[in-house]
Amino acid sequence: MQRFSRNHRISAITKILLENPNKIISLNNFTKMFSTAKSTISEDIVMVRDTLAKLEMGKIETISGAAGGIKYVCGISNEKNREFAEKLCIILKNKERIIPGNFLYMTDIMFNPEIIYKAGIILASAFVDKNIDYVVTVETKGIPLAYEVARMLGVQLVVVRRETKFTEGSTIMVNYVSGSTGRIQNMSLSKKAMTFGSKCIFIDDFMKAGGTANGIINLLKEFESELLGIGILIDNVEIPKKLIQDYVAIVDFKGIDQNGEAQLFPSKIIK
Amino acid sequence: MQRFSRNHRISAITKILLENPNKIISLNNFTKMFSTAKSTISEDIVMVRDTLAKLEMGKIETISGAAGGIKYVCGISNEKNREFAEKLCIILKNKERIIPGNFLYMTDIMFNPEIIYKAGIILASAFVDKNIDYVVTVETKGIPLAYEVARMLGVQLVVVRRETKFTEGSTIMVNYVSGSTGRIQNMSLSKKAMTFGSKCIFIDDFMKAGGTANGIINLLKEFESELLGIGILIDNVEIPKKLIQDYVAIVDFKGIDQNGEAQLFPSKIIK
Repeated sequence: MQRFSRNHRISAITKILLENPNKIISLNNFTKMFSTAKSTISEDIVMVRDTLAKLEMGKIETISGAAGGIKYVCGISNEKNREFAEKLCIILKNKERIIPGNFLYMTDIMFNPEIIYKAGIILASAFVDKNIDYVVTVETKGIPLAYEVARMLGVQLVVVRRETKFTEGSTIMVNYVSGSTGRIQNMSLSKKAMTFGSKCIFIDDFMKAGGTANGIINLLKEFESELLGIGILIDNVEIPKKLIQDYVAIVDFKGIDQNGEAQLFPSKIIK
Repeated sequence: MQRFSRNHRISAITKILLENPNKIISLNNFTKMFSTAKSTISEDIVMVRDTLAKLEMGKIETISGAAGGIKYVCGISNEKNREFAEKLCIILKNKERIIPGNFLYMTDIMFNPEIIYKAGIILASAFVDKNIDYVVTVETKGIPLAYEVARMLGVQLVVVRRETKFTEGSTIMVNYVSGSTGRIQNMSLSKKAMTFGSKCIFIDDFMKAGGTANGIINLLKEFESELLGIGILIDNVEIPKKLIQDYVAIVDFKGIDQNGEAQLFPSKIIK
């Protein structure tokens, strides 16, 4: 039998909590793992809780009752939040990102784990009190961000497809009107992907007029499910007339000015 | 100024290392954060290193020199590895997963953060010594797994698209022959997505004959880049004649038997 000192236990408990965000872990797991008394483990947990609070790096909640235990809830200070949004603006302002049609190339951002991990914590923190069942996104670019938010909230990710695939079984398909182009588009979801009567949030990379978000609301209605929030990495605020009013964004994009410079600012919605 | 005890520092150091897998962190970061001497931090790190080693939960490497520091390298014991593969087989054997055409519904698995996080550690551990520059995948189902592997290896994720999008700038497109259907298909990648002369691994959800992996090799050649490894969650071993020989898988799928039961086994490649 291995012996664990308090230092060892604290390091291990920190790791295990962090690897299971928003999941309740019974103290019995720790007493078995370290062959030690519950009171000792409780003292260890106080130290971990203190550390997270001091450094504003999330918190540990205690859930009482038979199915109780502790869980790690992600969090980030307003200061770090703003610092992240400012850094992201600088990265996005690089002139080489402007591609024909005055689009901003940002695929590499959406697939950069260091950036997406932090953005995931910011967006998950905004919805952690909603007790949702699923994080929903539409393929493709928003998938890593939506996955990270789902992981932080300890729930399943659901990816809505543009086309129906035969490996999905029976699907429900809805049509929606793109808010920026006015074109009719499809989105579909396997009936196996979601339990009816669920609570969801929608996470995406970029918000234009909000047509996609509207489509998601309609698709969720088919599953008798509810959309409780929307989180976006970059909000195109050049389009003032949005179909959707209530959402959280990290960065505002105000288009490309006469000098060919992308106008980007930390979003006001993240205080 | 906040005061941090050894217990606090150890918890914080564990969290910071874990949140930055395979990234070198200078000890100066910690001495500044905790206003303490380097020798004290070194002692803290010894405790964290010991804990990870005792519990076989990855390791901490020391990198010497001016740009040196420490980094967390993910890892998992062979026992936990096998336990995970066995559990995954049980989940996949559920008869409700069989959909018309004798396919196995596994989309929910690929979008389940708890499963994908662990699978990501297993596959990342297999390639951690290759010092790769990118993790490559093809849209859509393998994206969370490939993202998790990229995060664990501290590198950028690259997602190859089926179709060209105008938000990608100039792209390189290749054709490839699907090994199972014999049909010709396209895959494309933005020229901005990858630096020429890079070392990559390919991560995907499911391997049939290996046509997609072959396509990736050809696409990487256009970027003068090299494929150093392939990691797959589920390998369809019903197709014995593979176009690709050398790859790592977690679970073997041997089709659906006469009783309508999916045949699934932990892959031999994961010892």
